[in-house]
Amino acid sequence: MLPSDTRLVSVDDHLIEHPMVWQERLPQAMREQGPHIVELETGAQQWCFEGVVAGTTGLSAVAGTPLKERGTDPRRFEEMRRGCWDPIARLDDMDQDGVAVQLPFPNYAGFAGSRFFRAKDKVLALECVRAYNDFVLDEWCAAAPDRYIPMVIVPFWDVQRSAEELQRCAAKGARAISFPDNPAPLGLPSFHTDHWDPLFAVVQDVGVPICMHFGTSGNTPHIADDAPLAVTTTLMGSTLFSSMVDLLMSPVLHKFPGIKVCYSEGQIGWIPFALQRMDQVWEHYRFYSLERTINPDVRPSDLFRKHVYGCFIDDEVGVAQRDYIGVDNILWESDYPHADSLWPNSRATAEKLLSSVPDEDARKIGELNARALFKLT
Amino acid sequence: MLPSDTRLVSVDDHLIEHPMVWQERLPQAMREQGPHIVELETGAQQWCFEGVVAGTTGLSAVAGTPLKERGTDPRRFEEMRRGCWDPIARLDDMDQDGVAVQLPFPNYAGFAGSRFFRAKDKVLALECVRAYNDFVLDEWCAAAPDRYIPMVIVPFWDVQRSAEELQRCAAKGARAISFPDNPAPLGLPSFHTDHWDPLFAVVQDVGVPICMHFGTSGNTPHIADDAPLAVTTTLMGSTLFSSMVDLLMSPVLHKFPGIKVCYSEGQIGWIPFALQRMDQVWEHYRFYSLERTINPDVRPSDLFRKHVYGCFIDDEVGVAQRDYIGVDNILWESDYPHADSLWPNSRATAEKLLSSVPDEDARKIGELNARALFKLT
Repeated sequence: MLPSDTRLVSVDDHLIEHPMVWQERLPQAMREQGPHIVELETGAQQWCFEGVVAGTTGLSAVAGTPLKERGTDPRRFEEMRRGCWDPIARLDDMDQDGVAVQLPFPNYAGFAGSRFFRAKDKVLALECVRAYNDFVLDEWCAAAPDRYIPMVIVPFWDVQRSAEELQRCAAKGARAISFPDNPAPLGLPSFHTDHWDPLFAVVQDVGVPICMHFGTSGNTPHIADDAPLAVTTTLMGSTLFSSMVDLLMSPVLHKFPGIKVCYSEGQIGWIPFALQRMDQVWEHYRFYSLERTINPDVRPSDLFRKHVYGCFIDDEVGVAQRDYIGVDNILWESDYPHADSLWPNSRATAEKLLSSVPDEDARKIGELNARALFKLT
Repeated sequence: MLPSDTRLVSVDDHLIEHPMVWQERLPQAMREQGPHIVELETGAQQWCFEGVVAGTTGLSAVAGTPLKERGTDPRRFEEMRRGCWDPIARLDDMDQDGVAVQLPFPNYAGFAGSRFFRAKDKVLALECVRAYNDFVLDEWCAAAPDRYIPMVIVPFWDVQRSAEELQRCAAKGARAISFPDNPAPLGLPSFHTDHWDPLFAVVQDVGVPICMHFGTSGNTPHIADDAPLAVTTTLMGSTLFSSMVDLLMSPVLHKFPGIKVCYSEGQIGWIPFALQRMDQVWEHYRFYSLERTINPDVRPSDLFRKHVYGCFIDDEVGVAQRDYIGVDNILWESDYPHADSLWPNSRATAEKLLSSVPDEDARKIGELNARALFKLT
């Protein structure tokens, strides 16, 4: 079971950017086009960026709202729990939830900052990325440095500038980078190219893990036009199945043996099957002389255990298979304040899920693995 | 362990259609446009249909070929094991493999007959479907009625004719129908519509299971243009994850409570996670008042256990989780003579995989579940 003195580290949460994140930081001339909040006739508030009003909070800020009252409607900041957008107020929510440390992803900016990837004006977009990172480093995480792990985004449409921005942020204390789980569906070069090497070299050099959150590849599962939303929601996590297979069969982790990767919000119960299947296919294909080859020497499951971490919120199937995955490769997350969050019952759920796990392993999963990976003191 | 007197029933194999399947059965005027074998300058044989030369055997007929010698090159019929295309010769291969009964899918015709769905001339295509079914019923399975389960295809571009063809074939002894695991990616109405009701009504009425083989939705995983083929191969099975979620969250099995569905060649190790995740999402979404709703009363995992079967070849992860899946919902397959086949070690592998499974459960998985589902005597 989870020892009572475990200081739970959650490795996937989201901050809701407050209205002034960009307005306080962008150069004066860019503020009108930069992200700012507008008031709609409906009484809701929405973001406006490059003249486009889009980006609701809806299901992004629902922790604690009863299931039957949830909707996807836009809302106002004052209707949210203050902990959504206020790092000090959030500490109380974390205390109620039994969570010691959070790793906040962006929300409006896109989980890997992809809103700025889609921007028309890439000069503005780069400033927006920098402003977000300064906000995370100087304001949000600085509010409680022992409770938040600073994760930054990069202008991933430009690999050199991405490398520079990560270098800049690492010098300011960044401990993680959020990056698309697969750049190919975004129209960018895949992990099978050398394109990303300058960024990955910096990632390895500064020693921060890459967190790949589902949805960041833009690869939303599309099963049928008229399928209920529940189908897509069920399958979102399995986009990470595809991305993990793609990465583990690419040259990236062979070229950069120091890189660690976390797959965020994908849960872990599918990982044993994915590892088994990759190994089976690898056993066949490493002998085939096809045009595009795979590394013939390292079994994908061995590569996984050296480099990759799975994260879970509520996954009994995954916890039961922890030894197959590798107890050292499992992290825990709370997803506050998004729809998957179990707040204020995150710790209680974790305790239940880990009740039959040996104490030492439960503590690794709940705290020690994350502490080592993100170099927390 | 698997009792030694278990008569193993494999529920996913492939027959390689011999050169005269269509030429012997199509109306004389259709034979030139119908499928026939042509000799290429390279010395290989290939199929020709509607004037288009395409459709190699390659990896489709490799059972017993050492891994290092396999390729995707076209081959000649006489280079294949005779058991690929000769139902009598195949019996010896089955005996060597320890397999009592096989359920052969098409090969050249497409696993759900989708080559004829893509045909230009739909009058010809309908005749091709009928010819294939007559071949399976009157020739292949008639050669050894106690060793082969007759599975038919339907002209699924036309739901009324599909219903009629299934009715016709059921009267001749068909015991299973092969159907796309998801018609939506083919540009056809999804399972969320009423479009398929006339066919499903016949399926329920004649009492044959629907076998959905991976790849039949045309939904090949596309991860990156330059990803190695091993990535796609690893992920092929997970297309059934998507399809199963889509079907279980559709109205089909609520409207037709007598229908049973087998997911072929998808393995089973992902099913526990899929069921858990569907149930979690269902718990949330059944309360949401969204435009497209899901059945709020029946838990997806309960629906699965009443209607759905998973099939495995070599899946230690899945067998270990058999109780979560439901021992009654698991079938075994050998995939002869395709690339996933372990011939002539299919039974030996099954025995190893099932060695720690109670005898009664191992016999269910290897024989009794399939016997009951396909109404074998």
